[in-house]
Amino acid sequence: MNKRLKHIVASAAAIGALAAAASAVAQQGPKPEQLIKWRQSAYQLLAWNTGRIKTNVEGQYNKDEVVKAANTIAAIANSGLGALYAPGTETGKGWHETAVKPELFTDKKAGEVAANFNKEANELAKVAAVGDVAAVKAQLGKVQGTCKACHDDFRKKD
Amino acid sequence: MNKRLKHIVASAAAIGALAAAASAVAQQGPKPEQLIKWRQSAYQLLAWNTGRIKTNVEGQYNKDEVVKAANTIAAIANSGLGALYAPGTETGKGWHETAVKPELFTDKKAGEVAANFNKEANELAKVAAVGDVAAVKAQLGKVQGTCKACHDDFRKKD
Repeated sequence: MNKRLKHIVASAAAIGALAAAASAVAQQGPKPEQLIKWRQSAYQLLAWNTGRIKTNVEGQYNKDEVVKAANTIAAIANSGLGALYAPGTETGKGWHETAVKPELFTDKKAGEVAANFNKEANELAKVAAVGDVAAVKAQLGKVQGTCKACHDDFRKKD
Repeated sequence: MNKRLKHIVASAAAIGALAAAASAVAQQGPKPEQLIKWRQSAYQLLAWNTGRIKTNVEGQYNKDEVVKAANTIAAIANSGLGALYAPGTETGKGWHETAVKPELFTDKKAGEVAANFNKEANELAKVAAVGDVAAVKAQLGKVQGTCKACHDDFRKKD
């Protein structure tokens, strides 16, 4: 290989490496800060909707509103929140510093806790569709129990 | 009415007024800042989920992920976001200063724009369940069109 040809081959290889790096960046998807912001947003919507159901079961009951709230909770539970805990999001700031404990990323119990939340959230949507206030209240308590279980194990104290 | 009785009556009236005011505060529910934070969170989740569907229709298609994302978008659209635009939330800071224009609270077109979003979001969930990639891509475009329509009319420019 003559000197000029070697130079062309080396340049082509360099361009190839750059393209591969650019592609890897593109495939990485959203930045950790964005993922943390999204999961913090998800929990805010869960708080809004559990709060609405609580207000309904403790006061004037509006079945339509409870159904909407329960369906939103179930959809978020089923949305695949795990994707928002991708590697690189163990620490960092979304809307605020993440409160997640490192254990969430290593402890097998985390998957179990998440599955319990999904199960109870889906049950809440079913119970809300029927519309028995006492049953909704009881099931809301179960959902909130799964929230607390995760907070106890995997969320830093305020 | 003697002087002492007048005093008692006046005191009772004052207590009644205080109780009524306290009750009104309780009935008002969450503070404007909280409502703004919740609606900003809702839009973040919509961005997460429309982004996921975009990634799927432009690359490797995962029907299960698209269904989850579309169901989340539809549930949020149906959740009754209008409640997060209660009086008192025309200005203020949630996660950040609200970008809403005052027209959203007065222009009748706002309800129409919101209804269009709901309609297209519900259609997206149906189309996602079928799983035709081209149809999902087209319907995602319609949903995003309704996002843009609202931003154009009712959201301050960055």
